[in-house]
Amino acid sequence: MQKSIFPFKPKYLNRTSCLVSLIKRFSDDTRLTASRASATTYRGPCVVGGWIKAARHQRKFSFINIIDGLSKRDLQIVAPASLISDVSGLRVGASIKVEGMLVDSPAKGQCVELQADKIDLLGQNDDTYPFVSNTHAYSPDYIRQYLHLRSKKPEFSAMLRLRSKCRQLIHKYFAENDFVQIDTPILTTNDCEGAGETFSVGSLMQNRTKQSFFGETGVNLTVSGQLHLEASNSGIAKVYTFGPAFRADNAVDTTHLAEFYMIEGEIAFINGLEDLLECVEDLTKYVAKSITENEQEDIEALSSGSTGCEQHDITRCINNKFHRITYTEAIKLLESASEDFSFKPKYGEDIRREHEKYILKVHDSVPVFITDWPKKLKPFYMYVNEDGETVSCMDLIVPGPGELVGGSVRENRHGVLKKSLEDADMLESCQWYLDIRQYGSVPHAGFGMGFERFLQFLFGIKQIRDTLPFPRYANNCRL
Amino acid sequence: MQKSIFPFKPKYLNRTSCLVSLIKRFSDDTRLTASRASATTYRGPCVVGGWIKAARHQRKFSFINIIDGLSKRDLQIVAPASLISDVSGLRVGASIKVEGMLVDSPAKGQCVELQADKIDLLGQNDDTYPFVSNTHAYSPDYIRQYLHLRSKKPEFSAMLRLRSKCRQLIHKYFAENDFVQIDTPILTTNDCEGAGETFSVGSLMQNRTKQSFFGETGVNLTVSGQLHLEASNSGIAKVYTFGPAFRADNAVDTTHLAEFYMIEGEIAFINGLEDLLECVEDLTKYVAKSITENEQEDIEALSSGSTGCEQHDITRCINNKFHRITYTEAIKLLESASEDFSFKPKYGEDIRREHEKYILKVHDSVPVFITDWPKKLKPFYMYVNEDGETVSCMDLIVPGPGELVGGSVRENRHGVLKKSLEDADMLESCQWYLDIRQYGSVPHAGFGMGFERFLQFLFGIKQIRDTLPFPRYANNCRL
Repeated sequence: MQKSIFPFKPKYLNRTSCLVSLIKRFSDDTRLTASRASATTYRGPCVVGGWIKAARHQRKFSFINIIDGLSKRDLQIVAPASLISDVSGLRVGASIKVEGMLVDSPAKGQCVELQADKIDLLGQNDDTYPFVSNTHAYSPDYIRQYLHLRSKKPEFSAMLRLRSKCRQLIHKYFAENDFVQIDTPILTTNDCEGAGETFSVGSLMQNRTKQSFFGETGVNLTVSGQLHLEASNSGIAKVYTFGPAFRADNAVDTTHLAEFYMIEGEIAFINGLEDLLECVEDLTKYVAKSITENEQEDIEALSSGSTGCEQHDITRCINNKFHRITYTEAIKLLESASEDFSFKPKYGEDIRREHEKYILKVHDSVPVFITDWPKKLKPFYMYVNEDGETVSCMDLIVPGPGELVGGSVRENRHGVLKKSLEDADMLESCQWYLDIRQYGSVPHAGFGMGFERFLQFLFGIKQIRDTLPFPRYANNCRL
Repeated sequence: MQKSIFPFKPKYLNRTSCLVSLIKRFSDDTRLTASRASATTYRGPCVVGGWIKAARHQRKFSFINIIDGLSKRDLQIVAPASLISDVSGLRVGASIKVEGMLVDSPAKGQCVELQADKIDLLGQNDDTYPFVSNTHAYSPDYIRQYLHLRSKKPEFSAMLRLRSKCRQLIHKYFAENDFVQIDTPILTTNDCEGAGETFSVGSLMQNRTKQSFFGETGVNLTVSGQLHLEASNSGIAKVYTFGPAFRADNAVDTTHLAEFYMIEGEIAFINGLEDLLECVEDLTKYVAKSITENEQEDIEALSSGSTGCEQHDITRCINNKFHRITYTEAIKLLESASEDFSFKPKYGEDIRREHEKYILKVHDSVPVFITDWPKKLKPFYMYVNEDGETVSCMDLIVPGPGELVGGSVRENRHGVLKKSLEDADMLESCQWYLDIRQYGSVPHAGFGMGFERFLQFLFGIKQIRDTLPFPRYANNCRL
């Protein structure tokens, strides 16, 4: 195995020995970033790089705290005044490289500090820096103006780390349960939901030559990977996809994006809707439990630094079984409520945001599956129940963003699906989808979870635009 | 922790006890798929679902092999003739549910078999099934005609599993090395490469209302996440992205797709190009080593069933240090070659496919980094070397697909970058990118690796369209 160098930690060395070996090989280089240095048990000479989070210059010493965005932790540099000829460059946000001695810290709240022998200013910062104060709580709206610099804000880099960790946990859950990840296509001539909220795609070349790149019209950005995932599911019993989806939805609110990520799973040989509910509940709790147990430091960094979070009691969702009610029961519950709803609940109509909030309230803020909706409110691919009126499906509603997951048993009966496709005037474009039912069709079910809403739910993030680095929504595609 | 049911394996139970508990709870359900049953050490009553891979009907017994696509393994069902009233439905590709007794198998080549008590035909298959023979080696071109059924072919489901495993390994590598995954946007107004091969995006609504959804023109599909990744890298020292990228490239060959996946990494506080090379070499070998050591079964399934693979000696790439030559050295090498090239190699010109092949040949088919290319052949963002003529960059060429990775030290000097942007007439659109250099700029470098080409390299897959489920290329956007 080839030996790797920092910043690539060889797998067979622990942090300490890795550091030692690096120091030996690269004593004159920037071989550590702040997080690594602050976490190691090594004590001795080293070279560390980072961005200045805070600096205090006293008569005899300067105290400089640097960060690297890889964790919440900062590293304190202690530098004799004689080392620094001009302190004016050492301001918040500037980047430095420090050579010195890593020692146990006598100060409270940190176990290590770096006694500097040499400090190089790598990159200056100037007065136009939008996050010049390290104590002021900038509003999320203000921070969002500087998309290209947002990761410099500790609360936002904490969010990006949490997002990355949640991604890992989701993949881990599926891997542990034998799922195969499938990359469903982004460009497609199918529109799964048929809602007309799709983005169309052309090529710049096409604009000049008037020739379609794909040789056909109607190429769109995917709104959901489901149909394609079902195709893969016809030969692989458990599949999932975790990729971007797009909807040209004009809703300008706290829970919609034009570009967002979806976690979609499809499971063959399933025994009915309850199997699907248990899968979704299991996945949700798996991620919620692991992230709250292991990433408390970043969760605090996210919520303490920002005014954009409103934490709810996530343990309530982890420790209680999610509720299950049918759509019919939900409507009855809403009809009997004394609340003054803007939209009167009615059988056959959609369940609104205000209704969801009420349903969650009477269920002690524990997530609720609403199952078996009227067929006419749902897309063509859902399994028609014996009553002929409802379909075997669910929406999962949760505190915070409301609707988090949608799913259903899929119609696997060739004749019934054919009829539904005809009714929806989609038989021609979805012939391939119907075909799957002709060759070894199996009972199967699947779901789609909005990843950004999941993050809102987990961390109480109020505005969905603050759950990803470069949000896209109506009238906004900056950078 | 809530108890999950099959097909979701509770984390605290091993396969055997899980199976036992499931049998107890769901004795009348389809609770196992073929792979799980064939891998378990449990012996006893169970219910298994799967697709028929082969069936032999003898006078006293039927022998039916079923698969589930979750592994190469099949499970043999032994059924007394009395159990099956009509064998005609039990054909290749049909799906069945079997109740019976899992026992040690007396037959060679399998450790377990299922003695059936009851067989339910879940989904029939018919004569129009395109993969009706389980012995005929269908050509990749033939199989690719049936995109929606491809996962039913064992060699293609093996490819999908390997793709999924490689994805996991890549994420694992980055996680072990403290990288944070960033979702760079798919929709963007930036065109990183400036090659004009971008897809443009509108909305169907826009076609009707003539109002742009994003309130601006020039929204494209990303060609690379690099610029945005660098923005995130300005506050988080190690970041990567692994997502789709799009190029309206008319090349109809074995190594180009219009929609493909890129693994891109950016590393701050880096010490120079060699650090980047070591990272790329380390990542490549990490995945190659792990996948060849652990997934030999699927690699065999992929290459044995198909005529679409041409395996090269991957261990040669794992066990040798990748070569490093400069562009200048590469040109000299090519000029001195006795080969009869279609394109005469010349300093200042690109290195062609035929040239790459020659360079690999004289380097014993071990991957070669070609570094320090002339500035005019490369994009604006690369670090200009001291000579003022070349940039600090690399292409990694490998056996099979040729160019696998491109990367460079990024220009972090504000003044130099500003000049390059002005020369490329991109200053206005990339002002934000230049801005990053104004606030704590650091030496940093990054790379982009084409995931599908990586799979071609790892498994010798000749046609890139066979490395992903739904390929998109010029004149093709089926399904």
